[in-house]
Amino acid sequence: MRFIIQRDYLLQSVQDVMKAVTSRTTIPILTGIKIVVSEEGVTLTGSDSDVSIESFIPKEDGDKEIVEIKQTGSIVLQAKFFSEIVRKLPTDTVEIVVENHLQTVIRSGKSEFNLNGLDAEEYPHLPQIAEENVFRIPTDLLKALIRQTVFAVSTSETRPILTGVNWKVEDNELICIATDSHRLALRKARLETEAVGKHNVVIPGKSLTELSKILDDTAAMVDIVITENQVLFKTKHLLFFSRLLEGNYPDTARLIPNERKTDVVVNTKEFLQAIDRASLLAREGKNNVVKFAILEGNTIEVSSNTPEIGKVVEEIPAQSVEGEELKISFSAKYMMDALKALEGSEIQISFTGAMRPFVIRPLNDEAILQLILPVRTY
Amino acid sequence: MRFIIQRDYLLQSVQDVMKAVTSRTTIPILTGIKIVVSEEGVTLTGSDSDVSIESFIPKEDGDKEIVEIKQTGSIVLQAKFFSEIVRKLPTDTVEIVVENHLQTVIRSGKSEFNLNGLDAEEYPHLPQIAEENVFRIPTDLLKALIRQTVFAVSTSETRPILTGVNWKVEDNELICIATDSHRLALRKARLETEAVGKHNVVIPGKSLTELSKILDDTAAMVDIVITENQVLFKTKHLLFFSRLLEGNYPDTARLIPNERKTDVVVNTKEFLQAIDRASLLAREGKNNVVKFAILEGNTIEVSSNTPEIGKVVEEIPAQSVEGEELKISFSAKYMMDALKALEGSEIQISFTGAMRPFVIRPLNDEAILQLILPVRTY
Repeated sequence: MRFIIQRDYLLQSVQDVMKAVTSRTTIPILTGIKIVVSEEGVTLTGSDSDVSIESFIPKEDGDKEIVEIKQTGSIVLQAKFFSEIVRKLPTDTVEIVVENHLQTVIRSGKSEFNLNGLDAEEYPHLPQIAEENVFRIPTDLLKALIRQTVFAVSTSETRPILTGVNWKVEDNELICIATDSHRLALRKARLETEAVGKHNVVIPGKSLTELSKILDDTAAMVDIVITENQVLFKTKHLLFFSRLLEGNYPDTARLIPNERKTDVVVNTKEFLQAIDRASLLAREGKNNVVKFAILEGNTIEVSSNTPEIGKVVEEIPAQSVEGEELKISFSAKYMMDALKALEGSEIQISFTGAMRPFVIRPLNDEAILQLILPVRTY
Repeated sequence: MRFIIQRDYLLQSVQDVMKAVTSRTTIPILTGIKIVVSEEGVTLTGSDSDVSIESFIPKEDGDKEIVEIKQTGSIVLQAKFFSEIVRKLPTDTVEIVVENHLQTVIRSGKSEFNLNGLDAEEYPHLPQIAEENVFRIPTDLLKALIRQTVFAVSTSETRPILTGVNWKVEDNELICIATDSHRLALRKARLETEAVGKHNVVIPGKSLTELSKILDDTAAMVDIVITENQVLFKTKHLLFFSRLLEGNYPDTARLIPNERKTDVVVNTKEFLQAIDRASLLAREGKNNVVKFAILEGNTIEVSSNTPEIGKVVEEIPAQSVEGEELKISFSAKYMMDALKALEGSEIQISFTGAMRPFVIRPLNDEAILQLILPVRTY
């Protein structure tokens, strides 16, 4: 194996596949990055066996030569050292050569590194995924879908299935749902592709967070392939594989109330900042809980009181209040998470009583909702 | 106590005095910020008993009214909550009122906070420092003096005196020295003030680091007063007190070699980057040690070798090499710290043999030097 490559391209690829590499693995070779040089270009792979990322660097990018292939071959190099070396090389090009006994030489200007490599034949094979039932969504929409749901997954391993996001594909619609059983986030998106079949899977929250980090904010399409135990996200030069969680995701449809007894419309930012301030003195107290009450004259009061520290009272003008009077308490953190996930300058909160879950939606947007379970304090 | 204040000014002062407040204190009232309102303005104080910071907000800044004083008085408020509240208030002005029983109301727009205060009479008094023998240096020079020496203090408490920086004032010159007994940093500065007397004190490194953080990069003068057990730094609206370390600082003059057997001049940035790369594979091995050798043709070689990982060889062109041949090993970290502290694009390294400390200086600048003890490996 021997090639000369533009350092910038190599660095970008190394940083992408590093997202899957962890030092806490029981399979030693997975602390490495696999490098495969073919006649077409260079492929890097990183994996922690749950998530695997493959990045391809083509020989040419338009008219620009990126890789000069001298000899094909493959090697596995320690990710921690290799990534640091590539980041700090002195010149714009770098030559990588595998010599006898997996010894790998990395040359750039007057720097010469000699790394002990591992045999690429011993690197685990990536899942083989037949590219059937592919559906496509724009990268920026995919990132929004992830951002607006993944924060609500459970961080506790007591019910492992809740640490993932439920993805359902049906009638050319994708529905993403996350819940930790105290709150729920739901986001729908219409799929442009024809006849994509039916799926109901659970993708680990951690995988989606990592995926989101390596995707650019572009409108370029991402191909998505769902199989029985794997999902594959595919961009121009990147393959991102994640295993799926096993088990049945709870039926969340019945959690979302159909009726509503009180509807409140408020400015998202004003409400978020008031909740944030009200939570300042609640943090130390009863699990960060604030009280919400509807006052006369379309005014909302948010308050908290921790006798040993002090109390806060916030008043926010509501744009409209319809239905029954209400006093309710909820987690300020859950409300802030929900408000940050929503788009739009006004939101509508629909209550069905002080002891029932309530729903937060942007005004006139049915594609997204956030649900929070109240806390008994009033 | 009752006043209305511009939030920006209050926030800046709170952030400054917060630098001295720690939650890990054995004196409960020191977890608070003391607020004193006089006819002239508002004074905030934070302290961890080693460092105390006092910030004064005058009633007016030029033509602009900053504070409207309704009633003088004082209170101590929990720093953690008070600072978060001030940061998140909704409007540009804030009213603070102490009511019965130390209850303090903070009002801004439609937000109202009620904090349990503590009696300001119980807050420890700051040291009284007679303003004699004041000397002055520009803020940016003071920050440079700190930056170029404080990194070399010891982090170990086995010899507490070495956790401080030795400040000596004599013949209208200030000399700052720090050493952890493996390396030493020295920086001198001429004092413009007349007849400032003679001092030899040790200021805790931690205090200087905090001081540096709250000083702006301006040329405004800082007044410095040194007493037997305290040092006071004084800017327009800020007083910064630090206790001094007790004990005698070792005599470091004899550590600095007078003779030199090999002089090398190199480009600072090139050398720093080569050391950085050479240390990549040394990190896991012998305590981050790299080897330095002078090759033919004014070339420097820096290398490291950790058999289980690999090796690096770096070549750097020297601008000049004078004197004996040399092979020497040293800590890459110490060398990088020293190079980052120096100013100037070229540096001179003066060796007196492979087992003796060596000195690094900018070319033609006697005001600063860095000294490193080598490691035996060759």
